[in-house]
Amino acid sequence: MAFDNNIPTKFPSLGENAPSGSDLLSLERSKASFDVQKLTEFMYTKDWLEKRNRVLAVIEKDPGFSKTHRYYQSRDAKVKSGFLKDKRIIELAEEHQWGPDERRVATFLYDQSTPFSLHHGMFIPTLMNQTTDEQKRLFLEPALKYEILGCYAQTELGHGSNVQGLETTATYISSTNEFDLHSPSLTSAKWWIGGLGKTATHAIVMARLVIHGKDHGPHPFCVQIRSLKDHRPLEGITVGDIGPKFGFNAVDNGFLLFDHYLVPHVSFLAGLAQVVPGTGDYIRPPNTKLSYGTMVYVRANIVMGVRFALAKAATISIRYAAVRQQFVDSANARTWGAKTVVETPVLDYTMQQYRLLPILASAYACFFTGREMMRLYEWNQQEMKKGRYDLLADVHASSSGLKSLTTTMAVDAIEDCRRACGGHGYSLFSGLGLFYQDYLPNTTWEGDNYVLTQQTARYLLKTYRQVLQTGGGPTTDEQQHNITASYLKEYLHRPTAKCTAMNPTDLQHPELILAAFKYRAAYGVAQVVAQLDRHGKSWNAVLVELQRVSRAHCQYLLVHNFFAALQSDPLLSSSKYCDIHSVLRTLACLFGLHMMEKDLAEFIVCGYLSITQCDWVKEQVMVLLDAIRPQAVPLVDAFDLPDYYLHSALGRYDGKVYKAMTEMAEMEPLNHSVVVDGYASSIRPLIFQGWKDGLPGDSKL
Amino acid sequence: MAFDNNIPTKFPSLGENAPSGSDLLSLERSKASFDVQKLTEFMYTKDWLEKRNRVLAVIEKDPGFSKTHRYYQSRDAKVKSGFLKDKRIIELAEEHQWGPDERRVATFLYDQSTPFSLHHGMFIPTLMNQTTDEQKRLFLEPALKYEILGCYAQTELGHGSNVQGLETTATYISSTNEFDLHSPSLTSAKWWIGGLGKTATHAIVMARLVIHGKDHGPHPFCVQIRSLKDHRPLEGITVGDIGPKFGFNAVDNGFLLFDHYLVPHVSFLAGLAQVVPGTGDYIRPPNTKLSYGTMVYVRANIVMGVRFALAKAATISIRYAAVRQQFVDSANARTWGAKTVVETPVLDYTMQQYRLLPILASAYACFFTGREMMRLYEWNQQEMKKGRYDLLADVHASSSGLKSLTTTMAVDAIEDCRRACGGHGYSLFSGLGLFYQDYLPNTTWEGDNYVLTQQTARYLLKTYRQVLQTGGGPTTDEQQHNITASYLKEYLHRPTAKCTAMNPTDLQHPELILAAFKYRAAYGVAQVVAQLDRHGKSWNAVLVELQRVSRAHCQYLLVHNFFAALQSDPLLSSSKYCDIHSVLRTLACLFGLHMMEKDLAEFIVCGYLSITQCDWVKEQVMVLLDAIRPQAVPLVDAFDLPDYYLHSALGRYDGKVYKAMTEMAEMEPLNHSVVVDGYASSIRPLIFQGWKDGLPGDSKL
Repeated sequence: MAFDNNIPTKFPSLGENAPSGSDLLSLERSKASFDVQKLTEFMYTKDWLEKRNRVLAVIEKDPGFSKTHRYYQSRDAKVKSGFLKDKRIIELAEEHQWGPDERRVATFLYDQSTPFSLHHGMFIPTLMNQTTDEQKRLFLEPALKYEILGCYAQTELGHGSNVQGLETTATYISSTNEFDLHSPSLTSAKWWIGGLGKTATHAIVMARLVIHGKDHGPHPFCVQIRSLKDHRPLEGITVGDIGPKFGFNAVDNGFLLFDHYLVPHVSFLAGLAQVVPGTGDYIRPPNTKLSYGTMVYVRANIVMGVRFALAKAATISIRYAAVRQQFVDSANARTWGAKTVVETPVLDYTMQQYRLLPILASAYACFFTGREMMRLYEWNQQEMKKGRYDLLADVHASSSGLKSLTTTMAVDAIEDCRRACGGHGYSLFSGLGLFYQDYLPNTTWEGDNYVLTQQTARYLLKTYRQVLQTGGGPTTDEQQHNITASYLKEYLHRPTAKCTAMNPTDLQHPELILAAFKYRAAYGVAQVVAQLDRHGKSWNAVLVELQRVSRAHCQYLLVHNFFAALQSDPLLSSSKYCDIHSVLRTLACLFGLHMMEKDLAEFIVCGYLSITQCDWVKEQVMVLLDAIRPQAVPLVDAFDLPDYYLHSALGRYDGKVYKAMTEMAEMEPLNHSVVVDGYASSIRPLIFQGWKDGLPGDSKL
Repeated sequence: MAFDNNIPTKFPSLGENAPSGSDLLSLERSKASFDVQKLTEFMYTKDWLEKRNRVLAVIEKDPGFSKTHRYYQSRDAKVKSGFLKDKRIIELAEEHQWGPDERRVATFLYDQSTPFSLHHGMFIPTLMNQTTDEQKRLFLEPALKYEILGCYAQTELGHGSNVQGLETTATYISSTNEFDLHSPSLTSAKWWIGGLGKTATHAIVMARLVIHGKDHGPHPFCVQIRSLKDHRPLEGITVGDIGPKFGFNAVDNGFLLFDHYLVPHVSFLAGLAQVVPGTGDYIRPPNTKLSYGTMVYVRANIVMGVRFALAKAATISIRYAAVRQQFVDSANARTWGAKTVVETPVLDYTMQQYRLLPILASAYACFFTGREMMRLYEWNQQEMKKGRYDLLADVHASSSGLKSLTTTMAVDAIEDCRRACGGHGYSLFSGLGLFYQDYLPNTTWEGDNYVLTQQTARYLLKTYRQVLQTGGGPTTDEQQHNITASYLKEYLHRPTAKCTAMNPTDLQHPELILAAFKYRAAYGVAQVVAQLDRHGKSWNAVLVELQRVSRAHCQYLLVHNFFAALQSDPLLSSSKYCDIHSVLRTLACLFGLHMMEKDLAEFIVCGYLSITQCDWVKEQVMVLLDAIRPQAVPLVDAFDLPDYYLHSALGRYDGKVYKAMTEMAEMEPLNHSVVVDGYASSIRPLIFQGWKDGLPGDSKL
């Protein structure tokens, strides 16, 4: 028999039915009402795109950056490929003279955290900001040259968000001028520490500083944990990997315990607080508000990242929805070439539009809000340098709430997009499964999303009480540029305002949408203040409401920033950009009204929208979906996410979805042999035991 | 140095802080207001529990059923362990004389689909129901003895829900009395077929039957695809595994293509339709409604399974929330033994209660609805046997919508519970990550959840139109036992009804809650009928509304079945069960009002609830959460899910969460050697290259 059984399995070369995915995407692109490239350049700048393309050209072909095996890797293979990439980027940076920008781009495009992520993200920054010159020489300089590899060990097995509850102790021994690091209980084990499992030689350890019996609370120490020679854990250290996670498995999150581990005085990071050698006198850190600025920066960056997460999810699911055909929508049946009737692309179904297009709109919303947060961050930094702290509280509170709201939006959107891809969304080849799993920690780190909303709410309540005290009178200095105080005051002046829409299309006026979000946010704050201050409810009793007011506030900011950019961005408001302005305005209305519809009860219960207006909201959402539908593919194209970045069979620019699915299936290791591990011990005996009178021939029975 | 570096890593033996997890769970259990064991027996029956315990005792210790390595396994190890379990259950069944019930229990407890799942779930049932006696002898008998292993190949790469769109052809060749199976295009490749990738020797193939050029649409064929001797694919077959998935990776979902593959006439499953040998005359299948009964049965089973999914998620997250302590709620600070103040268990925070307790309530709701669906299924089967089809349409439509609604509730709840576990929810040791991934296909198979709602909605619209025609007059025969027709008629009689609650606690009356759900469901149906029939909207234009009316209808059923059982179940309504009745009634109110709050806008926009009543709904949800709070742990305990089943560090019955986390981390393969793959090539060179002047000693710097 000449037949070779086709192992490793190769697919026969078969054609695609017309219309092909490429045909369908070309058709979509021909309907663009705006200049896609111009919008791309507006969002990224030509300079960044040039840089991106330059880096992309290098890493796309580099084995250290290959994504080919990403979806088939076991845990240890993932960690290994992470190491490879970490080492390779250092070499490439040298070779191509990449600066921090290019490295950031490469890391962004590779799109998977690696064991060194926390070395760069937390270890080095902490050593930069919280050390003496001596400590910079001892720790920072070798860290920058990768002579030592570090991590940041704060979270403990029993203690996450509540940093003040940490148990690890660092007891000062004045006689030897050392600290005794110790883990007194199981729950005190450092846990979840990225890069600690199998990589780090050093750790920044947050431990309670105890001097002469007095507990000064958590402080940072820089300590060696593994031998530089052979990577063995040092004596007194228990260290390892915390095991498999829902995602993020290329990173070796680790645990760490100390058994009366002695470290020298210099291990205590003395850039802020200090311990006087010998006497053990404790010198408090200067009470600086500057660290809040850093938090704003980190969170603004997360929101900028949310834009990419949303854009990636939208790109994959919308392109695939334009390619995937299912049933014939009889009212809207299409023909194609010789075929009289072809199945309808699922993107033509209103349910699919309802599921996907608001996510596309939210990607753009997060672009504008991310940009605005960066502007506020920089403005605030300038102000603080001049000793003015007027902006800080507002910027910090909003950045907390926006981090919480937008990362939750993103994780939900990724999963919604995955599900909207139907069965194939469940294949890892969709590019959405691992993405969801890897993205999720964004909802936990830099402040748990639920805990964060309390910070935002606390500020909103405080501001409202201040506004109440001044009776909504003339603004104080602090309130002058304060968007929060401003809408709360507006509410106080017109506490029974109503939506002024007289007919459905009125709802497409930005002013009208903004007014609704402002009123609903302020009303929520006023209600909670009343519950606390007048009805004597406890903080715990109103936690659910607090989360709602934080969200309402941040939703207003998202809508506000979107419309504000459309109105006042110099480019967008120029006549040369009117094609882009027009489609973005429709998108902004969709974003606002869809979000309003999702929380419609809040807009009615406060008395702002009438029941008729609620029906209009629903109606206008459908009208706007219909308006955006033909622009959906051009709008995801404008995000210009390279195929290398997406690494998705379904989201490819060229629409060759089915070809890509089969090519990726050919690479499945199980297909490289006739039988797999387990056949000989389990399947074969079963079959053979059955045919007691001898196997039948391999006929087709 | 005596220090051995502690590799493989073992944790030091450290105590837990007081109060320990066990202390906290004991305290919770001491607060039970009802007899937990009695509730357990009510739900499962003593008989089933005895069976469960008997099977559990066997498989807990059996290597073939071990879950020890589940969270560390690579794809091929997962498949291999699946084979092992598949073979082992056959042996155990023989050894312990297990019947189908015991096997089902074993499979339920093992809680992971395996390569043989579709052999039992689809291959054998199809051969039982759609074959001639000759085919039973040829295919079914060897299948029952595992002499051949099968799968069910329907879905294609380009065709899922739309079965009529399948492309694979089976062309009858009258001269040889054979069929020519062929895959004409890439999109016609069979795809997603469970057990096909590396296991099946045979497949039921759905292919378009073509005779003398006439296409009779998809029909089933049973064909051999691999050699029984050595498992090689037969000539003309391309077969393999479709690659890694988001979950379900112990199953070898596969692909299959035919290159003019000839099969004998007997391959055509002739239990229903027939093809006359030689002439090729096609004999239509008898037009039976019985197959709808089967669908109802399958879906009722899925809903019964939803109860376990919800109970599992609730058990893990609620037990952990009782053990996990975070911050001190100052208004509610606790002391413990010698400790003056200890951190507050997160279950005491209202936000956490709001996230978790409604999920607990929904687990009980699905128990009662699953039970009711089974009753209706059996009643309907009896009726159909008597030639009466009055019940069928209603039961079928409701089962479609309920499958859609409850499986969506379940996947969302699993993920909500995972997130509510904070950082540790992200560890696979939580037991919630893989669980979510593996459970997800429930939303797609047996009818995609979105597509299904159209079936339910179509029936609701039809029933409403019928009711309209009879002017809400006397019921027809068909409507007599028809809960749907009954509430639609009620609406027609009182189209402007209002909620009669006069004060907040009125909302805890079952009648009041039920009336609200009925009105809101009927109002939605009436609106959509008006849009289609009076405003001439297309089906596509109202898809979003259709999904809403299906959900509204099924939410009503869930609430109805819960309260109906409380009122009329002989045990529950007896005085001996008043402790249980009381807590379940509170739970039913919470379930109803929380669901109402989530979709509050729909209850207001229809004019049924006033704004004041909406505030009462929110308020009562908080009141009910507070009432359920002390019963939360006893209520999850009543589901009596064994630790073996949960396989979760966080959800253990004994509350030893942190001990379990560290024990599972010790088993992580990465911790079994000092360095991992990649160290020598990536990390070591970096470190050594840095220290050009020689490594520093392993001091602590």
